Amino acid sequence: MYSCETIIRVRYAETDRMGYVYYGNYAAFYESGRVEALRALGLSYRDMEDKGIMLPVLSFNIKYYKPAFFDDVLIIKTSVKEMPAGTRIHFHYETRNERGVMLNEGGTSHVFLQNGRPAAVPQEVIDKLQSFFTK
Amino acid sequence: MYSCETIIRVRYAETDRMGYVYYGNYAAFYESGRVEALRALGLSYRDMEDKGIMLPVLSFNIKYYKPAFFDDVLIIKTSVKEMPAGTRIHFHYETRNERGVMLNEGGTSHVFLQNGRPAAVPQEVIDKLQSFFTK
Amino acid sequence: MYSCETIIRVRYAETDRMGYVYYGNYAAFYESGRVEALRALGLSYRDMEDKGIMLPVLSFNIKYYKPAFFDDVLIIKTSVKEMPAGTRIHFHYETRNERGVMLNEGGTSHVFLQNGRPAAVPQEVIDKLQSFFTK
Amino acid sequence: MYSCETIIRVRYAETDRMGYVYYGNYAAFYESGRVEALRALGLSYRDMEDKGIMLPVLSFNIKYYKPAFFDDVLIIKTSVKEMPAGTRIHFHYETRNERGVMLNEGGTSHVFLQNGRPAAVPQEVIDKLQSFFTK
Repeated sequence: MYSCETIIRVRYAETDRMGYVYYGNYAAFYESGRVEALRALGLSYRDMEDKGIMLPVLSFNIKYYKPAFFDDVLIIKTSVKEMPAGTRIHFHYETRNERGVMLNEGGTSHVFLQNGRPAAVPQEVIDKLQSFFTK
Repeated sequence: MYSCETIIRVRYAETDRMGYVYYGNYAAFYESGRVEALRALGLSYRDMEDKGIMLPVLSFNIKYYKPAFFDDVLIIKTSVKEMPAGTRIHFHYETRNERGVMLNEGGTSHVFLQNGRPAAVPQEVIDKLQSFFTK
Repeated sequence: MYSCETIIRVRYAETDRMGYVYYGNYAAFYESGRVEALRALGLSYRDMEDKGIMLPVLSFNIKYYKPAFFDDVLIIKTSVKEMPAGTRIHFHYETRNERGVMLNEGGTSHVFLQNGRPAAVPQEVIDKLQSFFTK
Repeated sequence: MYSCETIIRVRYAETDRMGYVYYGNYAAFYESGRVEALRALGLSYRDMEDKGIMLPVLSFNIKYYKPAFFDDVLIIKTSVKEMPAGTRIHFHYETRNERGVMLNEGGTSHVFLQNGRPAAVPQEVIDKLQSFFTK
């Protein structure tokens, strides 16, 4: 398993009139987690896109346990739990607050596209993840 | 089953650099669908909140089949497929474009809170939905 | 002067923990007003972009008089007060609530780009606006 | 003059189909700059709100010189250029990219509200800023 933690400070813009972080904003927080998890592996998602590789989201799910509030410091733990195979990759996310309380968890599935068509997981992604999945 | 359709015109603000509606924005589109589905029943979610009833989201899931683009007119079909019982309600959503192509579908689960504590589905919600579930 | 009114229903997503529409969200509301003002003239901003014409924002200003709230129906009045000349166009916006109270007003300035370079206001824009500025 | 710099990594969610950061998103970036500028002074905006003090935005203006892109690291320089007096405070913002290029600059004006009514700039704000304005 490969994991990486990303820190996010909640903006006023991200709260709603309940005082909670709006439930839809975690999609962007998870995206930050995902991009930083790739970067920590030595992979730039921006560079991948510049080379014609895209990674659109096929599905997204999230369970909300507790709300986050304005100015909270959130820790997003992003994990790749299984070595990606075929054309797809799955990410798992857990959001905790500074006290370590789990606020929500979820997942996204993605397909690699090369010039708009599904393509095998790029070799460099395989290479970077390999060491986390071999005993 | 109770269903209601809501129309949304995609804003430039809601697209991303792929040219697609950003995957996280459907949470707000589904919220519009949900609020309008309640309104069409004669229920104002704002009034409910003003009376101390809240309906936070417990879970959200979505499958993306095709992207939506800037200026697309989207039809969000929001359904309550089962008569709510206990303290919870589930909504199902389907997004289609003007040509009737299904772009994504998903669901949200919610708990009714009264003064911050889980509470039975309000009687007026039961009353309004009843006729859609009795033969 | 050319003016057009657009209706926007405030989403929960657009409120903040003060219960107000977050001050940054009016940029997207004004964008809706702008796009609909062009459409009412017979101009599709999407088609313009598809032809290689872009209209990025050079400046944006807004004065907030009163807040808007969740579920409010807002009327955005978008105006072109001067016939555009050279490579630029200015829009003026006024947001009112259902009771006709002015909530905020502002403006945006834009430059026409053709293939990434400043270009004269397209002839079709001139043609469509002309009748609103001649006595 | 008092200044503070805040770092923001551009999210995919914040780009639009032009590939630029959507012009409305700088309101949230400036908000981050503002909140961090207060924190660097030893002032927590969250604590202020918890004490019943609010600081809604009266006006916002911004000039865009160059776009920002996905994954860019932006430096927001937030300044208080004049000692606040009466009930108001003004912030100035400059956004630069990693190469030091100025992308946009703007300002916001705010009024201090205590229990919903305009109130004098809190003494602790005066105290914290004082040393930056005396020679």
